[in-house]
Amino acid sequence: MSITVVGSIAYDAVKTPFGERERMLGGAATHFALAASFFDTVRPVGPVGGDFADADLAVLATRGTVTDDVEVVPDGKTFFWAGEYGWDLNSRDTLDTQLNVFESFAPKLSDAARACDVLFLANIQPELQAQVLDAVEAGGRVRFTALDSMNLWIDIARDALVDVIRRVDCLILNDAELRQLTGRPNLVSAAREVLTWGPTSVVAKQGEYGAALVTESGFFSLPAYPLETVIDPTGAGDTFAGGFVGHVAQHVADGVTDDVLRRAMAYGTALASFNVEEFGTERVARLTADEIHARVDALHDVGRFDLQTPVLLGDHR
Amino acid sequence: MSITVVGSIAYDAVKTPFGERERMLGGAATHFALAASFFDTVRPVGPVGGDFADADLAVLATRGTVTDDVEVVPDGKTFFWAGEYGWDLNSRDTLDTQLNVFESFAPKLSDAARACDVLFLANIQPELQAQVLDAVEAGGRVRFTALDSMNLWIDIARDALVDVIRRVDCLILNDAELRQLTGRPNLVSAAREVLTWGPTSVVAKQGEYGAALVTESGFFSLPAYPLETVIDPTGAGDTFAGGFVGHVAQHVADGVTDDVLRRAMAYGTALASFNVEEFGTERVARLTADEIHARVDALHDVGRFDLQTPVLLGDHR
Repeated sequence: MSITVVGSIAYDAVKTPFGERERMLGGAATHFALAASFFDTVRPVGPVGGDFADADLAVLATRGTVTDDVEVVPDGKTFFWAGEYGWDLNSRDTLDTQLNVFESFAPKLSDAARACDVLFLANIQPELQAQVLDAVEAGGRVRFTALDSMNLWIDIARDALVDVIRRVDCLILNDAELRQLTGRPNLVSAAREVLTWGPTSVVAKQGEYGAALVTESGFFSLPAYPLETVIDPTGAGDTFAGGFVGHVAQHVADGVTDDVLRRAMAYGTALASFNVEEFGTERVARLTADEIHARVDALHDVGRFDLQTPVLLGDHR
Repeated sequence: MSITVVGSIAYDAVKTPFGERERMLGGAATHFALAASFFDTVRPVGPVGGDFADADLAVLATRGTVTDDVEVVPDGKTFFWAGEYGWDLNSRDTLDTQLNVFESFAPKLSDAARACDVLFLANIQPELQAQVLDAVEAGGRVRFTALDSMNLWIDIARDALVDVIRRVDCLILNDAELRQLTGRPNLVSAAREVLTWGPTSVVAKQGEYGAALVTESGFFSLPAYPLETVIDPTGAGDTFAGGFVGHVAQHVADGVTDDVLRRAMAYGTALASFNVEEFGTERVARLTADEIHARVDALHDVGRFDLQTPVLLGDHR
């Protein structure tokens, strides 16, 4: 089994109330791969520039991730993003975005990347997502596809975005973007609208509040793992997606049931909680399986209550 | 057993994307009482004007709520609040606040209201909350006290607010206000700070995202009950408090354990979900016990996942 992911591999400059980094490894495909590599072989597809350090390629290759489809553009520069977070980390300003090698990126997938069992289309231009989906479908093995996007594409390329969403199994989106995409202010209603387009599951990422899953048969929700120390939220959503899609990949041969998706939400939530504890990829790069299991166990208890009966409700005259 | 609540009994003018009401029964004590009346005898303490309709007093008396401590000021006018909600109901503007009879309110509790087992101090001036707490402590029976407040009092009367928080068992506050109160941007950290002041439990209300409970021994979180139709969020927080405190009241004689508090969170969440389905008190006034039980059962499942093992995480080289 293997997972292909297409998306940015980047350098980030990040400032939070707890410190800053001028240039650290980042990007959606990077964060996704570091998380998903716990579950399966991951192949990231995306371009980097001649400035991309061997040490960072080694981090990307953590836990067996295959970097053959990382395309090095020798005379180009790696995608660069700079941002700054507010005091409670719930707001952030983008200070700079330099597409660099992404400006002329045309995905070329190796045979192995095409022959994946599971595909994650991280947030890039919808037309590129569609091209990768074409290639992977031609690969003939894929059984589960998931897609992330952002408000920019809803603003400037909504039709293309909706076209590619129609073709995937699972949409993973921030809750505000899900509302924007569908024009429906109610989250459940927005998710159900997307289910009528084609996907069989919708995940609404809710930042510090966690994430919700909507399928034909129901609604599931998990809060974020409760942390007293959050240092840098950058990449949390893609790390979540890596844990979520990674767990699905382990079970895709037996069918992606609601039980699998619910557990996948727990793995995504656990992985994301580690990501935010330090800057960039620092924490997840050295994470262990035991640490993940311990947080999934804790999440299993976080919303648990006993239905002790009888509880008599009525008139107290 | 009985519950005393002090807080506003009001007329509200509310506009949401789904309709409007020019003058409807509202107020924190009203919403709290309508929810808590399912669990125990409730005695609301608060003033109304000569304009307060008998029909509204009858609504307040639903399910045996005793209105003896509702003080009618014949030549005064009832507290009035007007507000308008944005398209996704997550933002609201206050258009008008007329304190009216609340401007000169001095709580006078009957012997029965003083002799309550459980006290809820809804959002009013902290000095008045302290006076009511004095009276109820003198009553000699009280075993559980909870308090709500708002950003206004944190801004203009923080010392008095902290003084009264030190004396209660449970603080129930919006998450943003909890951050503001403690100056701590992290929610868990903010809640733990309050636990060092005196309370043994802190509930952070998170609006559409649900609510979190922090005690000495742990963290619990429940999402809001998933609804496709939300008409008017006014009073949701006080309705939550009514369900939460109501369930605690049923168990206060045996000790308010974490198990009781967790179930109380579920009852609060269920009650609040009904409140928002229609304007003001309309839905909860005619709610039935069976409807509440059904939603608590559904909430029991909403964050449930199986810890299916073995899940092998590791190196995929």
